[in-house]
Amino acid sequence: MQGMMQDWPLLIHRVIDHAAIQHGAREVVTRSIEGPIHRTTYAEIRNRALKVAQRLAREGIRPGDRVATLAWNTARHLETWYGITGAGAVYHTINPRLFEEQIVYIANHAEDKLLFVDLTFVATIEKLQDRLPTITRFIVLTDAAHMPQTRLRGAVAYEDWLAEADGDFSWVALEETAAAGMCYTSGTTGNPKGVVYSHRSNVLHAMMCVTPDAFNLSVNDCVLPIVPLFHANSWSLAFSGPMSGAKMVMPGMKLDGASVYELLESEQVTVTAAVPTVWLMLLQHMEKTGLRLSSLKHVLIGGSACPRAMIDAFENQYGVSVAHAWGMTEMSPVGSISSIKPDYGALAHDALLDLKAKQGSAPFGVEMKITDDADNPLPWDGKTFGRLKVRGMAVASAYFRGEGGEILDADGFFDTGDVATIDPYGAMQITDRAKDVIKSGGEWISSIDIENLAVGHPDVAEAAVIGISHPKWDERPLLIIIPKEGRSPTRADILDFMQGKIAKWWMPDDVVFVDAIPHTATGKIQKMQLREQFGAYRLPDAAA
Amino acid sequence: MQGMMQDWPLLIHRVIDHAAIQHGAREVVTRSIEGPIHRTTYAEIRNRALKVAQRLAREGIRPGDRVATLAWNTARHLETWYGITGAGAVYHTINPRLFEEQIVYIANHAEDKLLFVDLTFVATIEKLQDRLPTITRFIVLTDAAHMPQTRLRGAVAYEDWLAEADGDFSWVALEETAAAGMCYTSGTTGNPKGVVYSHRSNVLHAMMCVTPDAFNLSVNDCVLPIVPLFHANSWSLAFSGPMSGAKMVMPGMKLDGASVYELLESEQVTVTAAVPTVWLMLLQHMEKTGLRLSSLKHVLIGGSACPRAMIDAFENQYGVSVAHAWGMTEMSPVGSISSIKPDYGALAHDALLDLKAKQGSAPFGVEMKITDDADNPLPWDGKTFGRLKVRGMAVASAYFRGEGGEILDADGFFDTGDVATIDPYGAMQITDRAKDVIKSGGEWISSIDIENLAVGHPDVAEAAVIGISHPKWDERPLLIIIPKEGRSPTRADILDFMQGKIAKWWMPDDVVFVDAIPHTATGKIQKMQLREQFGAYRLPDAAA
Ligand SMILES: Nc1ncnc2c1ncn2[C@@H]1O[C@H](COP(=O)(O)O)[C@@H](O)[C@H]1O
Repeated sequence: MQGMMQDWPLLIHRVIDHAAIQHGAREVVTRSIEGPIHRTTYAEIRNRALKVAQRLAREGIRPGDRVATLAWNTARHLETWYGITGAGAVYHTINPRLFEEQIVYIANHAEDKLLFVDLTFVATIEKLQDRLPTITRFIVLTDAAHMPQTRLRGAVAYEDWLAEADGDFSWVALEETAAAGMCYTSGTTGNPKGVVYSHRSNVLHAMMCVTPDAFNLSVNDCVLPIVPLFHANSWSLAFSGPMSGAKMVMPGMKLDGASVYELLESEQVTVTAAVPTVWLMLLQHMEKTGLRLSSLKHVLIGGSACPRAMIDAFENQYGVSVAHAWGMTEMSPVGSISSIKPDYGALAHDALLDLKAKQGSAPFGVEMKITDDADNPLPWDGKTFGRLKVRGMAVASAYFRGEGGEILDADGFFDTGDVATIDPYGAMQITDRAKDVIKSGGEWISSIDIENLAVGHPDVAEAAVIGISHPKWDERPLLIIIPKEGRSPTRADILDFMQGKIAKWWMPDDVVFVDAIPHTATGKIQKMQLREQFGAYRLPDAAA
Repeated sequence: MQGMMQDWPLLIHRVIDHAAIQHGAREVVTRSIEGPIHRTTYAEIRNRALKVAQRLAREGIRPGDRVATLAWNTARHLETWYGITGAGAVYHTINPRLFEEQIVYIANHAEDKLLFVDLTFVATIEKLQDRLPTITRFIVLTDAAHMPQTRLRGAVAYEDWLAEADGDFSWVALEETAAAGMCYTSGTTGNPKGVVYSHRSNVLHAMMCVTPDAFNLSVNDCVLPIVPLFHANSWSLAFSGPMSGAKMVMPGMKLDGASVYELLESEQVTVTAAVPTVWLMLLQHMEKTGLRLSSLKHVLIGGSACPRAMIDAFENQYGVSVAHAWGMTEMSPVGSISSIKPDYGALAHDALLDLKAKQGSAPFGVEMKITDDADNPLPWDGKTFGRLKVRGMAVASAYFRGEGGEILDADGFFDTGDVATIDPYGAMQITDRAKDVIKSGGEWISSIDIENLAVGHPDVAEAAVIGISHPKWDERPLLIIIPKEGRSPTRADILDFMQGKIAKWWMPDDVVFVDAIPHTATGKIQKMQLREQFGAYRLPDAAA
């Protein structure tokens, strides 16, 4: 027996329709690539998205075609997404921080037909365009006045291109399981692999993110997505923002502490989201200048582990609550959010921070398990760690064109490549990347735990831990540190600070100080490169 | 091109699985029908639901079969729902406030196979069982110690019946569009009509209700659903409660002011939901006793229009925020929730109350329009009123067995039978009712049934019934009569004649005699004009 409810497919156009109808006058404010602050509304974004869709159809874009974007967070970038998906096509966000080789690889792999490109990236793409044969036309996200001289194929200023449409267009009808967007992840071995979001998964994921224990987005919020649209849908904010009717503030390309602070204050932002590196810049800026936050209530931190000290600073110095989130491109991306459940009872300051430093609980729509290497489930005791596997309504089932083969286990779970513990109340904590875990005397040591502890030292700007081969223990941890400007902590300072805060056998065997630590395009520490760099390094007691 | 995301059908068992895994120790507290307060947890409810499902399968219940419940809000009632849907069957909630005729009609129309029945209703069902041939067995929601002597077919105490299962059962795999639940509405003309919810619609609707601008349910909340499970899924709380991980408090059968107050305080409830009549009782109780509310933050009021004075009392006397909601059985039921959007700017006390007294805005997942009789859309200016029509992810497409015929317009919108204005920011206000029914204390009275009865009196030429607003019941019926020429029946004559022929609570509160009743061109009584005409009329006991 079937239910007798309306057939209302979860299509992305419904999100912007809803925003335009119910929250039409709500502002979307952008620090434009050209410089000035630009203001528009959800109603206007919907109108322009209709024009984008109409104009794409006229360019010959058909349902299922991939249309790429290489752009910062701006209202224009946002409206291209709604236009692309509204035309039945598939937005493919290219991460500008990828190497040129990778950009060429993924654009060809996706067979992108058109590229919307920000002014910032025109020069790069000019260099690459001969190797991007599937792209027939490059649309520069600017107006005629700012259009550069360029030899890009069919180059046109976005505003001119858009002006050729009148918006008299109907969203293309699709099944909700149709592809809506693509994002390549380089977080796996081998070539970047394409994750293909559906309309359904994006809409469900946004509904999940809006809820009180996730991002808690309300019509009275003002949200600043610093995490880029090219980074897994800006953690859903491209959809959950308009869905909730919150005002949006798009930061463009300026993500330094002063610029971010300025927007937070001038637009009276209440919720914002970014990776720890961005917050580090903001906190340092505020510390130096003595500035305070007058409107911010809630900061979402994820993408890599959020240091305990950062949570402490936001919550206890600035009165801003922190939601530490974990996820991945393959998960749309949100997988868990720190939440203080009543089960924990009243927690003292330190215990609360410890809990918030965990990656948190799976919201409805995400299922988790931890397993040993033979896929046996491990207990949720907060101590046992194992491979973290997930299943859910917005989790990838495969990569584009089947790259990487079968990625789900027999029960349909996807192996995240992370290693984690889960406590009895469901709070998950990443202890390592499966490939970064340090194995000492047959036991696992979490490099991330050590890193988080080390950055809590007042003189430490950034820390990385890698395993160094050891004759007796197989591997032992080496702690690599960038000191804060003007500080010069010693090995002993750092080790003393750590003493007693982790198991004795987890204590790094050595500490080295460096000027720089290599990062991936998405801001993660490149452990592989670090391991290469320290390939010849010998631990002090390695003779033992 | 298809998305490449996991196939994760929106099935109801996922809700209780999530609650058990992530919020397993969270309490569900019931004022039991037997008397004492009973405490259980989501983990336990899931275990017992598995047993219910296993036990149902053993009774021969197959996917799609209807299993009825005639019960108050209790943990047992809740677990039967998860058991029924987990077995692939369809819960059918029977409203005990229906007349016996109607109960017989709907149980037969639905072809219910089993009935879970509360102690309170055993006597009624004993009387009716011979006319309920499809029901093979009656399961009394109690334990052996409280099991009454009863001649109900196959009668068994629920706890005994459940003890025969060990819970070693897997939820039945279904498509998400499969039927999950049924609720008959008598808010239409003619016989009650069955709305058939799907797994998908119930899950999506719950996700919608959890969000900050709807019910705002968090893991740290404690929710008291006073609105019954038999009243359109307890406004989703049967699903959105466990989905959010909130503690739940089930009030059983005692809904008077003192009993509700006691639970609010003893369980430290933060969110609660009921029709205005229930809140009137609570407010009167608190006023009389001088009691205050120590934990309640948010009260959901709907089912009939929430009086402005009630909002004022909750917000300004007791510091509890009010969400005035509108919906209907056909909408799962939530259609709109009052929300103070930033568009309105700063509002003074009176303007704020006016706005909150509106039925509010459609959340994502509900679309609205107002139209004239020719289905032309009318402007959203806050003044023009028209027929309110809706479309959405949890709105009925038809009634069970096609009763009532085609119920959607050419664009797929369902006519709610309500008449409303919508302001430029999307806030909807019900101004009238096009459907010919009266809502008293949250339950329907058919004006046509009363009219038909009244014209049976030998002195009556024509009769019309309209709802007159009433401080306690929201609306009560007024009977308007044109006497036959030369006859002059009295109020008492008419009421005496009707006595015993309809339910007591359907009896008109007053009878007035007139010379003429306005008609439309096609000869129908113009109720809207009558309501205007009697706009200043006050019912005799309305001071109560
Ligand atoms: N907040 C409200 N204000 C006015 N009428 C309401 C409200 N909520 C529900 N109703 C009425 O109740 C009907 C739905 O009844 P039911 O299907 O029994 O829930 C709606 O169509 C309205 O006529």
